[in-house]
Amino acid sequence: MRITGTFLDEITHDIPSQNWGEKEWRKEFGLYREVGIDTVVIIRAGYRDRCVFPSKTVPGALPVKDDLAAMFLDLAEEYGQSLFFGTYDSGDHWMKGDWKKETEVNKAFVDEVASRYGEKKAFAGWYMCHETARNHLNITDLFNAIGGHCKAAKDVPVLISPFPMGEKQAGKENAVPLSTTFKEWDEIFGASSGVIDICAFQDGQIHYHELPEFHAGVSALTKKHGVTLWANVESFDRDMPIKFPPVDWRNLRMKLEEAGKVAEKVITFEFAHFMSPHSVWPAAHNLFRQYCEEFVIEL
Amino acid sequence: MRITGTFLDEITHDIPSQNWGEKEWRKEFGLYREVGIDTVVIIRAGYRDRCVFPSKTVPGALPVKDDLAAMFLDLAEEYGQSLFFGTYDSGDHWMKGDWKKETEVNKAFVDEVASRYGEKKAFAGWYMCHETARNHLNITDLFNAIGGHCKAAKDVPVLISPFPMGEKQAGKENAVPLSTTFKEWDEIFGASSGVIDICAFQDGQIHYHELPEFHAGVSALTKKHGVTLWANVESFDRDMPIKFPPVDWRNLRMKLEEAGKVAEKVITFEFAHFMSPHSVWPAAHNLFRQYCEEFVIEL
Amino acid sequence: MRITGTFLDEITHDIPSQNWGEKEWRKEFGLYREVGIDTVVIIRAGYRDRCVFPSKTVPGALPVKDDLAAMFLDLAEEYGQSLFFGTYDSGDHWMKGDWKKETEVNKAFVDEVASRYGEKKAFAGWYMCHETARNHLNITDLFNAIGGHCKAAKDVPVLISPFPMGEKQAGKENAVPLSTTFKEWDEIFGASSGVIDICAFQDGQIHYHELPEFHAGVSALTKKHGVTLWANVESFDRDMPIKFPPVDWRNLRMKLEEAGKVAEKVITFEFAHFMSPHSVWPAAHNLFRQYCEEFVIEL
Repeated sequence: MRITGTFLDEITHDIPSQNWGEKEWRKEFGLYREVGIDTVVIIRAGYRDRCVFPSKTVPGALPVKDDLAAMFLDLAEEYGQSLFFGTYDSGDHWMKGDWKKETEVNKAFVDEVASRYGEKKAFAGWYMCHETARNHLNITDLFNAIGGHCKAAKDVPVLISPFPMGEKQAGKENAVPLSTTFKEWDEIFGASSGVIDICAFQDGQIHYHELPEFHAGVSALTKKHGVTLWANVESFDRDMPIKFPPVDWRNLRMKLEEAGKVAEKVITFEFAHFMSPHSVWPAAHNLFRQYCEEFVIEL
Repeated sequence: MRITGTFLDEITHDIPSQNWGEKEWRKEFGLYREVGIDTVVIIRAGYRDRCVFPSKTVPGALPVKDDLAAMFLDLAEEYGQSLFFGTYDSGDHWMKGDWKKETEVNKAFVDEVASRYGEKKAFAGWYMCHETARNHLNITDLFNAIGGHCKAAKDVPVLISPFPMGEKQAGKENAVPLSTTFKEWDEIFGASSGVIDICAFQDGQIHYHELPEFHAGVSALTKKHGVTLWANVESFDRDMPIKFPPVDWRNLRMKLEEAGKVAEKVITFEFAHFMSPHSVWPAAHNLFRQYCEEFVIEL
Repeated sequence: MRITGTFLDEITHDIPSQNWGEKEWRKEFGLYREVGIDTVVIIRAGYRDRCVFPSKTVPGALPVKDDLAAMFLDLAEEYGQSLFFGTYDSGDHWMKGDWKKETEVNKAFVDEVASRYGEKKAFAGWYMCHETARNHLNITDLFNAIGGHCKAAKDVPVLISPFPMGEKQAGKENAVPLSTTFKEWDEIFGASSGVIDICAFQDGQIHYHELPEFHAGVSALTKKHGVTLWANVESFDRDMPIKFPPVDWRNLRMKLEEAGKVAEKVITFEFAHFMSPHSVWPAAHNLFRQYCEEFVIEL
């Protein structure tokens, strides 16, 4: 199954900036149309004191000169992509269990976003950016409050992209078995019914041999709860000393095959850094060629 | 405020080598002239058992075949830059508080440098390379002894580039408040009067929201002590897992604005790796384009 | 002394993938012929659950679509290189001292390799891939059992590439003195007589000033035991925060000079990532130019 969606990571959390301007992004969105990427997801629109647009609601926001949100929405409209708009992550309150404070800031932020960009034609969904692995930190309260507010502000689907706490993420000691992951996500989906429309689990934290069991499990869960299942097939490698290089093509191909067995759609974190012929990583250029060859994409 | 100076980092301490030869450096110095860089600073001429020229005074020096010091001085003369010559860092004695041993080696080293290169036209200053954040390790004794000897060997200005022990450097637990930084640098400047002519504090260890207070503080201090204030606006990012990638343009722009409010001149660590269109980092090429666009530099 | 051999690292253990396909490898092997590289070494053909060909003997192997072993052997034949075929590393049993389990899997693996590729013209040797620094973990039992089986399956020379447990590998606390390294390798060579034909010690774990003593020591040892001495002059830097960038040319030149005093042949880990003009690391392109200039190689 081909990749038809990608995250956009311009509040760079742990991925170094490519320093692209409007010209580079235009070329990239044009490429997305050519290779069949019809969906883009702003992974977060605000993070701590940063924002992709000049926000009035991000507490203590640093000065922002560029409106990347408008740029992404306009490019998506021009090149035919649907855009999911990321919410705000304080990197703080919710991680300490204070879902109420996190929700409060997010409600104002979501209102600001809806007011600034709600009429943009490409605005097709929300991406609820609080990534979690477990049923903890009052995460269902957070999902219900923020997701509900998103839908009230603009009634479009809500997407999340959680992850299993596999060994590549947590180490051998702290990894959570898949059975526990399934149990807790059964609880989470049950407790946040109607708020989460689409779920695209990340696939890079577990070992490759766990992929079949993992995909089968989340497929059963999302069917049970009426959630649309996408897959976030990561295009970087997590098991290298360099954090993070473009994925080995052999790994990506294997992961795409596994995800394609159950997911309605495959998106990736993320095309621009790790798979694009425009990437600052030369290995991404080679990955792109291999990917295009496999799926007989001619440019 | 534009960047008009850059460090040259050819005793690569924690930055991988670009493997440039004379041809690449010539192209780079030519570029510096075009973009208004009139000052280059050899960040250290000797480090542990390495040296940028075949030294007779570096203890236990490994064999050196190339005289990069002569090359840099000649290129600077040819392309109109002033060069500040870095001293020697044992990476050892002074860090254990033995400023006398560090001084002893440096005196011989400085004499050797003055004897080899003192007549070069581009030789415009000394860079005292012992970077410190605190008033500790007998740092003022070290500054007075080495800085004094530099001036005696060749009477040109002495530059230093210290740093505040901010959270990005020391972590939350060990970070030093700005108020303490100001207090200790008041002591240091007071105790090394006449030896330090120019001070360019590094700006990457503290959080962005601390920049205004930081720049105002060091501006007041240097005014009080009659020290010329430059700023070392770092062109790499310190908060990424990869140590270190080219800075996000949005961060650099913000930092240039803040530094430009107080500094007489902005230099950077360092142009060749992180901002140059000739860099081995493709993100540096994009950064350079954004920088040129902002300052309407046409090549 | 020029580099005339290189490892091939396509079970990427800690080096990010370049995502080369057959086209890129063909170009690379063609280059090897032009620059005098007559020997290629598959560093390991199987690792944990991965393999460079679709193996039936690697326990729990993940699906493999490409036969890189056949590709490397065919390219080596076409471009005139001798190929040393890497064995299997479980990354597990032998590290826990269970050399018998490691041997059992390797015997089946070696038989499979001999059966699949034994007739290939470029197949000129085995590379026994269990890298060790010490005489521990029953390493001589492992060498004798696997090396002996290799020779029985196809009687060609066996190469190993061990390393001294220097400070750059083990840190100051756990580093092993060179004298101990020599003593233990005297034991190992003595106990595995007739099984190890060629030994190419890695040269990147010790400090540069230790190189003369190191090379002299291993030269004496291999002479004593009738083992052919090659050198694995590493083309990456081990002392940078980024693990691992292309080596600084000044370091490579110094290391080549030292190794050339005793080794019959110099190979490197590894050309494709760290020295090739086709590498994803731009610093490798510059390194290649400097290397060619030094040895007057014109392409």
